Amino acid sequence: MSKEIGHKIWAIPEGYIPGSSNGPEPEFLSHETACILNTGKHSANIEITIYFSDREPVGPYILKVPSRRTLHLRFNELKEPEEIPRDTDYASVIISDVPIVVQHSRLDSRQAENALLSTIAFPVND
Amino acid sequence: MSKEIGHKIWAIPEGYIPGSSNGPEPEFLSHETACILNTGKHSANIEITIYFSDREPVGPYILKVPSRRTLHLRFNELKEPEEIPRDTDYASVIISDVPIVVQHSRLDSRQAENALLSTIAFPVND
Amino acid sequence: MSKEIGHKIWAIPEGYIPGSSNGPEPEFLSHETACILNTGKHSANIEITIYFSDREPVGPYILKVPSRRTLHLRFNELKEPEEIPRDTDYASVIISDVPIVVQHSRLDSRQAENALLSTIAFPVND
Amino acid sequence: MSKEIGHKIWAIPEGYIPGSSNGPEPEFLSHETACILNTGKHSANIEITIYFSDREPVGPYILKVPSRRTLHLRFNELKEPEEIPRDTDYASVIISDVPIVVQHSRLDSRQAENALLSTIAFPVND
Repeated sequence: MSKEIGHKIWAIPEGYIPGSSNGPEPEFLSHETACILNTGKHSANIEITIYFSDREPVGPYILKVPSRRTLHLRFNELKEPEEIPRDTDYASVIISDVPIVVQHSRLDSRQAENALLSTIAFPVND
Repeated sequence: MSKEIGHKIWAIPEGYIPGSSNGPEPEFLSHETACILNTGKHSANIEITIYFSDREPVGPYILKVPSRRTLHLRFNELKEPEEIPRDTDYASVIISDVPIVVQHSRLDSRQAENALLSTIAFPVND
Repeated sequence: MSKEIGHKIWAIPEGYIPGSSNGPEPEFLSHETACILNTGKHSANIEITIYFSDREPVGPYILKVPSRRTLHLRFNELKEPEEIPRDTDYASVIISDVPIVVQHSRLDSRQAENALLSTIAFPVND
Repeated sequence: MSKEIGHKIWAIPEGYIPGSSNGPEPEFLSHETACILNTGKHSANIEITIYFSDREPVGPYILKVPSRRTLHLRFNELKEPEEIPRDTDYASVIISDVPIVVQHSRLDSRQAENALLSTIAFPVND
């Protein structure tokens, strides 16, 4: 299937990258993920803006998801225009030039003592 | 981006603040959070009503989320008109004068034995 | 607020009550919950149907949620027309005569080693 | 109830099958599940396509969910056209010829140290 599905704007109000982790990295590094799915025929050009509780938003973080691919983006790997600070509440808005689907997760299922959360992000009607 | 996104009314049927916690506070205090994102140009004036299983609702709890900011509100920090009782089932309705996006979480990812849940709250069509 | 919010039909495809638990009951009994919120002026008369993988659906399970109240219903407490079997995949459809909001959870946050999941259920357009 | 509810196309951007597990199988095998509910009068003929980060999609995986039944499909049990690789990011699109409801879960609630996640999948408007 190469049909475009989803929305061009998504919001994730929850965001928090813990400042510490247990276990070998990168597999067991505590992380937040935006899982992005682009089922369409064209690459998705994506801009992410990060919102904070006490200062102006930062962004755009720019990335691309090729046609018919998924990208499980770890927020802690974003570097430009600046790293997302640890131990800090944030939120994100993801804008694409083609429809995509976004799911928010925090996960590490390979250690018995890990914790998981996940939810489909909030799709904004165009 | 300063576009308003989201809805003005949100519901979270699940709510429960455990009466006990493990670990140093406030980082490891068991807590429920409503993560609120206001991407618009105007402050969001918000009223929260708390529903119970066996008595009349309590509220409004009043708070403000500035323009282009996120607030990760811990329900256990609400004080007025009264604290939310511990070990008690509750639900909440969040009403804003401008569109916002709300995600419900219970989380502590910094202790190996913590548990997490999260979901985008239920948006009510205006 | 006494405004009716939500939908009259909700679906929860995931359901599974573990056959064993750790810790004193009922607090630490493994359980699945449908958190139901009725913000309106009238009691919600609710019928739940349980679907299985290999036999006909069972129901209706009948319950009431008063006006302006929440009910965090544990599926393992349903008795009539029959108990939901343990260690068995099931799904549920919840039908109300007035709009309600439903969130699905499996939770026990009072033991360090508990696990949690939660999602707003799937609302069916009338 | 034999009313058809749901949508014909669903997306789950998050997918990851851990390469290792703890505990006796199959109960404690780490697994990802698509919980599918078909409340209608007709069997659901379903095709699943799996998307990856770095190669073409694989599928369709073909399955059937009978009328008025639920199927809690474990992705790690899919064999044809090929097994889903472990320790690999993937996403899925589920297409049915009749309306269904889909919930994504990763769960094992019978071991104290297990972790859980769940969310209603993303429904695509026809």
